[in-house]
Amino acid sequence: MFKFVVKGTAFSSIDSKNVKVFENCLFCISETGMISAIISPEEKDYKTIIQEYSEKNKFQELAQGQYILPGFIDLHIHAPQWAQTGTALDLPLYEWLNTYTFPLEAKFSDEQFAERVYSDLVSQLIKNGTTTALYFATVHRKSSLRLAEICSEKGQRGLVGKVVMDDQEQNPDYYRDATTDEALAETELFIQEVLELNKRTPQGVYPVVTPRFIPSCTDNSLKGLGALAAKYDVHIQSHCSESDWAHSFVQERFGKNDAFALNDFGLLTEKAVMAHCGFLSDEDMDLFAKKGTAVAHCPISNAYFGNAVTPIARLLNDFQVETGLGSDISGGFSPSLFDNIRQAVMSSRMLEDGVDKDCCSEKRGVSGASITLNEAFYLATAGGGESLSLPIGKLEVGYAWDVQLVDSKKLPIFSKDEPLMTIFQKILYLSRPENIDEVWIQGEKVHDKNTKEVEVQA
Amino acid sequence: MFKFVVKGTAFSSIDSKNVKVFENCLFCISETGMISAIISPEEKDYKTIIQEYSEKNKFQELAQGQYILPGFIDLHIHAPQWAQTGTALDLPLYEWLNTYTFPLEAKFSDEQFAERVYSDLVSQLIKNGTTTALYFATVHRKSSLRLAEICSEKGQRGLVGKVVMDDQEQNPDYYRDATTDEALAETELFIQEVLELNKRTPQGVYPVVTPRFIPSCTDNSLKGLGALAAKYDVHIQSHCSESDWAHSFVQERFGKNDAFALNDFGLLTEKAVMAHCGFLSDEDMDLFAKKGTAVAHCPISNAYFGNAVTPIARLLNDFQVETGLGSDISGGFSPSLFDNIRQAVMSSRMLEDGVDKDCCSEKRGVSGASITLNEAFYLATAGGGESLSLPIGKLEVGYAWDVQLVDSKKLPIFSKDEPLMTIFQKILYLSRPENIDEVWIQGEKVHDKNTKEVEVQA
Ligand SMILES: [Zn+2]
Ligand SMILES: [Zn+2]
Repeated sequence: MFKFVVKGTAFSSIDSKNVKVFENCLFCISETGMISAIISPEEKDYKTIIQEYSEKNKFQELAQGQYILPGFIDLHIHAPQWAQTGTALDLPLYEWLNTYTFPLEAKFSDEQFAERVYSDLVSQLIKNGTTTALYFATVHRKSSLRLAEICSEKGQRGLVGKVVMDDQEQNPDYYRDATTDEALAETELFIQEVLELNKRTPQGVYPVVTPRFIPSCTDNSLKGLGALAAKYDVHIQSHCSESDWAHSFVQERFGKNDAFALNDFGLLTEKAVMAHCGFLSDEDMDLFAKKGTAVAHCPISNAYFGNAVTPIARLLNDFQVETGLGSDISGGFSPSLFDNIRQAVMSSRMLEDGVDKDCCSEKRGVSGASITLNEAFYLATAGGGESLSLPIGKLEVGYAWDVQLVDSKKLPIFSKDEPLMTIFQKILYLSRPENIDEVWIQGEKVHDKNTKEVEVQA
Repeated sequence: MFKFVVKGTAFSSIDSKNVKVFENCLFCISETGMISAIISPEEKDYKTIIQEYSEKNKFQELAQGQYILPGFIDLHIHAPQWAQTGTALDLPLYEWLNTYTFPLEAKFSDEQFAERVYSDLVSQLIKNGTTTALYFATVHRKSSLRLAEICSEKGQRGLVGKVVMDDQEQNPDYYRDATTDEALAETELFIQEVLELNKRTPQGVYPVVTPRFIPSCTDNSLKGLGALAAKYDVHIQSHCSESDWAHSFVQERFGKNDAFALNDFGLLTEKAVMAHCGFLSDEDMDLFAKKGTAVAHCPISNAYFGNAVTPIARLLNDFQVETGLGSDISGGFSPSLFDNIRQAVMSSRMLEDGVDKDCCSEKRGVSGASITLNEAFYLATAGGGESLSLPIGKLEVGYAWDVQLVDSKKLPIFSKDEPLMTIFQKILYLSRPENIDEVWIQGEKVHDKNTKEVEVQA
């Protein structure tokens, strides 16, 4: 007995290099929103199931030109910064943070303001096909909890962190945790509240231990946060080796790289996701692999603030580090992981070939650095799921029915014989939110382009 | 006496660095679709004109949240390649050309196929806010003429080239000009046909002399094309110093760089636009500046096939070379110049900072290489107009009324006091075709998002 059955053609990563096409398959969804069976046209039950579920009115056949993709998993996004997305990106990081970002985040002490921004953001992400997001909120516990509630209400799978930034010298007085003790107490209360909320949220909302990054935290808060993550067995997120500046800062403070410093505080775990990681050394990558800690690659944001391209091919192929994709709103300007997939490919090509014409071609780039479109798609889907240790991002039995139904009819397809993998490429390179007809999370429809705004039934 | 008057807030480049905000101005459009006057609220005629043109039913006031931008000018696009946009980009250039691109272009001997692809492309470009495009078609005169006719019919300002590639050794037998003489004769006939078509096209369609690039042409065709361009005083386009390979090929054949070789054939003129130009030397840039020849920067395509980032800041600031932006469909995947504006900024940041973390930060990038969002906007608008020597791309008296009306209501704006230049940045970074309400070319509405497909009245 399934909750419903969907017939259509779908694309899903089977590993970082290969995409499987499910042509005209039946996706059988359980009462709890999981994929219970995938049945191909050759199988004997195929016709019986179609007939049975059609009669029960629990059968959906995709329209001509519609295709199923797994929903995207955004591994790094600063929810409050949605209000300034696309602005001030011409500035250097320090000015961008202090003149714009911190004053904006400080405003989230106002829960009504938080409500407006977070509510719009979660809706926009869903429209963009993002079914799971790992959010930085702000230092404020209450409005951070509100973000988790909005995810719960709108049907998105949200992992939310109340940000910790308690170092009195490194953070502005108007925007930081008052004391280390308060930072830890508020974090613990936040964890308990979100765990409670999770009990009544079918798709899941999860609390995340969130030191902003090493430079903004005291040793005591970092230690305390590691202990809290262990006590509650929850996710961890931070920024790691993002830029020349951040990399050097940690070296000066601890005499070691970010990765090893974070590890000392118990912050590199199987459930940890570290943003950027542009400056990981081979030893750092090896440590990530051993610990099962994941990298959130944010290629758009990287172009502005990264000072170098995160070597994704090296992480994936040489070190088997779990890796996914993040929008990094608003260091990155786009809420769409389609845009980030494209940039991940382009940035990797630019790393491979190099950028400076005055450097000879042999020395200009980094051989072997480019990734394929399939690999970038993997990052946005299955790689994100593995990074979060959740059964999401793939079309496979035992995974959640988190999908986007994409309409290819307006894409430039002029032949009836276009190979499915060519259509797949056109979808990845040319889709925009207006091409996403429906979004489903945990077996619930959370977006339908043709109805204005769908509220999820409880 | 104006044809109509539009009241609204607009943004336009006044030079490569500065954008002017026209707050609540009246744009008075002549019978021929030119901007005859721009009247600001302080001026004495302001209210009288509103009243007068309201009564005549020739007054349009922008809706709340709507803004006017100049239409975009796409300086480099291969129209036939629209059919393969977004595919096969993982391949090296040689394979991409020979396995996919040339076989596809060869199909444009079939005028019905050409009609389908070109018609869809021109409509899509208009929806994306592109009001003028400089097209490469194919070697086929008839279907190239069909592209010019489609531009004429749909109201887009099109500059179209029948491609010349006559070298028997460098081009596949199934896709090239049969002989040098035929290449030149067909080009001349094409020029005459398009000049004829232009007489009945208010917004203008223009023939363009189009050697594909030096490696695909014989000396005789290059020489003949230079002569034809001079005889008819028409535009010229080609590719110049695109990649390591192209750069070296020309060096070996002529013992000089592309720029000087093209100049020898009379192909570097005030009306010439050269795509890519990633490997121009200082002397090449200087020659471009002296000749008034323009560069079409194609930042998305560059990331795949350019082998380096075209140094736009150097072209603009150090050499004052006319420079605009091209989508380079399908070396680039996006028909949107919004996407190319964003990539132009990102690529320039990556050139400035460098990409390889293992290179020390002092040597990693090219100091002074980054461009601002304003500069990238300039490239897509006023810079493109200057490159084509046409009065387009700016909101200024004497310029064509080529505009896009962009809806900011769905953008993340949460304050009533958001500064206009902040809204401008959000529009540039976050707009997609669905945010473009209307597109006007030469004073005619050619796209209205709320009516399905507008056909232009003759
Ligand atoms: Zn971040
Ligand atoms: Zn080209």
